[in-house]
Amino acid sequence: MNGAQAVATTLVKSGVTTCFANPGTSEMHFVAALDAVSQMRGVLCLFEGVATGAADGYGRMTGGPAAALLHLGPGLANGLANLHNARRAHTPVLAIVGDHATYHKRFDAPLESDIDALAGSVSGWVRRSSRSAEAPADAADAIAAAMTPPGQVATLILPADVTWTDGAQPAPAAIARPPAQVADSVIDPIAAVLRSGEQCVILLGGAGLYRPALEAASRLAEATGARLIAETFPARLQRGAGIPAIDRLAYLAEFAVGQLAGARHLILAGARAPVSFFAYPDKASYLVPAGCDVHTLAVAGEDVAGALAALGQRAAPDATARPAPSARPELPTGELTGQSAAAAIGALLPEDAIVCDEANTSGIWLPAATAGAPPHDWLTLTGGAIGQGLPVATGAAVACPGRPVLALEADGSAMYTISALWTHAREQLDITTVIFSNRSYAVLNMELDRTGATTTGDVARSLLDLSRPTLDFTALAAGMGVPATRAVTAEEFAGQLRHALAEPGPHLIEAALPAVG
Amino acid sequence: MNGAQAVATTLVKSGVTTCFANPGTSEMHFVAALDAVSQMRGVLCLFEGVATGAADGYGRMTGGPAAALLHLGPGLANGLANLHNARRAHTPVLAIVGDHATYHKRFDAPLESDIDALAGSVSGWVRRSSRSAEAPADAADAIAAAMTPPGQVATLILPADVTWTDGAQPAPAAIARPPAQVADSVIDPIAAVLRSGEQCVILLGGAGLYRPALEAASRLAEATGARLIAETFPARLQRGAGIPAIDRLAYLAEFAVGQLAGARHLILAGARAPVSFFAYPDKASYLVPAGCDVHTLAVAGEDVAGALAALGQRAAPDATARPAPSARPELPTGELTGQSAAAAIGALLPEDAIVCDEANTSGIWLPAATAGAPPHDWLTLTGGAIGQGLPVATGAAVACPGRPVLALEADGSAMYTISALWTHAREQLDITTVIFSNRSYAVLNMELDRTGATTTGDVARSLLDLSRPTLDFTALAAGMGVPATRAVTAEEFAGQLRHALAEPGPHLIEAALPAVG
Repeated sequence: MNGAQAVATTLVKSGVTTCFANPGTSEMHFVAALDAVSQMRGVLCLFEGVATGAADGYGRMTGGPAAALLHLGPGLANGLANLHNARRAHTPVLAIVGDHATYHKRFDAPLESDIDALAGSVSGWVRRSSRSAEAPADAADAIAAAMTPPGQVATLILPADVTWTDGAQPAPAAIARPPAQVADSVIDPIAAVLRSGEQCVILLGGAGLYRPALEAASRLAEATGARLIAETFPARLQRGAGIPAIDRLAYLAEFAVGQLAGARHLILAGARAPVSFFAYPDKASYLVPAGCDVHTLAVAGEDVAGALAALGQRAAPDATARPAPSARPELPTGELTGQSAAAAIGALLPEDAIVCDEANTSGIWLPAATAGAPPHDWLTLTGGAIGQGLPVATGAAVACPGRPVLALEADGSAMYTISALWTHAREQLDITTVIFSNRSYAVLNMELDRTGATTTGDVARSLLDLSRPTLDFTALAAGMGVPATRAVTAEEFAGQLRHALAEPGPHLIEAALPAVG
Repeated sequence: MNGAQAVATTLVKSGVTTCFANPGTSEMHFVAALDAVSQMRGVLCLFEGVATGAADGYGRMTGGPAAALLHLGPGLANGLANLHNARRAHTPVLAIVGDHATYHKRFDAPLESDIDALAGSVSGWVRRSSRSAEAPADAADAIAAAMTPPGQVATLILPADVTWTDGAQPAPAAIARPPAQVADSVIDPIAAVLRSGEQCVILLGGAGLYRPALEAASRLAEATGARLIAETFPARLQRGAGIPAIDRLAYLAEFAVGQLAGARHLILAGARAPVSFFAYPDKASYLVPAGCDVHTLAVAGEDVAGALAALGQRAAPDATARPAPSARPELPTGELTGQSAAAAIGALLPEDAIVCDEANTSGIWLPAATAGAPPHDWLTLTGGAIGQGLPVATGAAVACPGRPVLALEADGSAMYTISALWTHAREQLDITTVIFSNRSYAVLNMELDRTGATTTGDVARSLLDLSRPTLDFTALAAGMGVPATRAVTAEEFAGQLRHALAEPGPHLIEAALPAVG
């Protein structure tokens, strides 16, 4: 068989059975090979940023990689922003980038560019296959690299002639490596800290935000008085009624500082020591309070839940976790605002929902409003590269066909990768997209002031304004085959949300909020 | 003044008076500075690929750079594909990339990434300002670099604290460097070749496709029998009635080989020796015929028109150029096809139009149909990174407010940067967008066969199919504030095109062509 067929077969043998694709001429043999491997699902995306974001969402939900098939350097470039988010999420992603035939590169044809440089900026592993016979083993190595705990982007560059040349055989399946165990010599002193009676904060991140780790951490908190805080932008936070509740560290450094105030010890469990998202004049970048000792229980890629459980055996042997109570807000009435929209979402969120949250400023009421809803997963914008929500929802829905997906999107962010809606329609994914439309890059109106960039003129404000012309997301959705409605009152929003969640397939609701700016 | 104000002032002093922007928090001081510099026009784009493509279109039409303001690594990443096209077009572009404050980078905050690696892949010049006082001189150097003939992408990375720190002063204006003159020792032997009576082809590219160079080349052709061919994807080709006509080298290598067959000498005038766009099994990558000598009259960045004129003094002193005759097709009737749509465009193209051509497979009838239309500029997809047409049209319209712009777009390509339509509406740009909708990545259906990637299954074909669901571009346009219509007959198309061209401001026409695939 040719290189493409052997690579595709190796992927399927290794459990990589989904390929989010935006292919071009140099990937035609790989595309053709998908027909020879019936277990592989090809999902067409109209823009590479959708494909890579979908692979991120898929990997967050399954723990294993999907492939994203990209067309040379520009295709990879278009997918980089969401690979950046995947890198920050520690998601296993297999990026397959087609390239010119090996002998063609020296001619510097129009699409020639430095793929390796681009790949290196987001990938933990990069390889360029040079021979058809070696490509399948390269693919297996790439999958193994992607799955190396905690997960990373692995990029395999496949020259066209490597894919079309015969003589290749599938490689043995890649095998996932388990997370490393944390040594007792790390755990024992942290147990002593927790028993010291001094004020402790346990900052949880990564796999520390899955239910088993949250329950172990909750037991510690109940027994020792330690406070639990989640990293600001989790890749996947399991939450809702019956799961221990945890507040996330605030995005705004001044609020984060308040959350951490008084801590004598900060224990990192899958999270990193907190830093400000951006720098601001005369504000701190490093957010650990002065005089607070930092203890690393587990870094990303180590067995966070196991370390927390071991810590519990030492510091909280008899404690029980405190699950969040079941509670929903009343269905809201009156004006549709970020707050009333959040209440409606909290009131109606289905069990086992996957929430992809890129609501940004409009979303600040969401965590409280949904804290007691039935158990669900909450996926956030891990790397700050907006345009992530609709693609991640795509991948989550493909990964979990039995679960309802709710994509909560800011209007400005939605426009980066709006063509994801077409894939929602094409695949008839059970995704309800809510667009929080405030006709503004609202976060920047806030940041313009916070950075001290005072201005009295109109030019600056106009560059943050999305109201001229108003974006009509119901028209955009209809143009891509997604049924859509607009809500201007809380009652309308709740009614539309109930309908969208009840009916299979994709829906979009434009939540017309009061304008910002 | 602070660094941002001094940089903005330096830009305006140097003639950089347009900034296509998609800013974020780290660029807030630069955004605020735009209010202090009234000559600067800020144009908001909803996606960075629109901003960079617009800067490309602006630079192609003015010969000087616009700025594209981008937000850290992910913002640059989103703009890379169209910077790749600008690099291939040799367009002067000033990319300004905001970054974290210098002291903040070591904290590896979520948006931290290797901006320099990304910038290097598309830029001829990259610098990272490190001090507020030096940033204005860095900006002047960047502008000078961008304008170095033939033009290139220059990327200036501006850390946030460099922009907000006081104590900067504007730098002296950057001065454009003229193109280098070609030496007589290069010209004389080529004149001898042209007088030899052996079959010669002059391959023109870059500034060799502007009217003065075309007229000089035409005189040579008339006097010596040399054939003129344009590079396949010109950045800007001046053409139409009264300007010497020139065929472009075919995209498909097998046709290009036919065009070059029999040539004993290939004279390069601002173009490179032709190579195949992609490699194919058992087909040549290098397209110069065996036995054909290649002579480089002028490389990109040298004075191509001057070199052609000097060559004319030696080889064709008494010749006159042959202008294309004025001729338009009849207005078409009946079925709307790529061919009849091209006829309508040829019949109605206004004088001085700027045509941004990303029609791809649907566009093959356009060159012939418009050859005798009133003089116009033709801008093509120089680097093969699709999603270029609507952004380039944006920049061309901003650059040339008195000229009508016609954006000819394939449906698949349009979706990469569809949000450009919003900027068309916001700025009320006089752009008529035609979407050639064949519900397919038609070029890939062709390439699937040409690459020998034979397949009998449905998966591969489905990955090239845009028909499920059908994209409704009139709804998409309406969602972004652009009046839109759909044409299903040639008469409808002609009527809608006439109306759109006559009425100022943006319009979109979806040309519903027969389906491909």
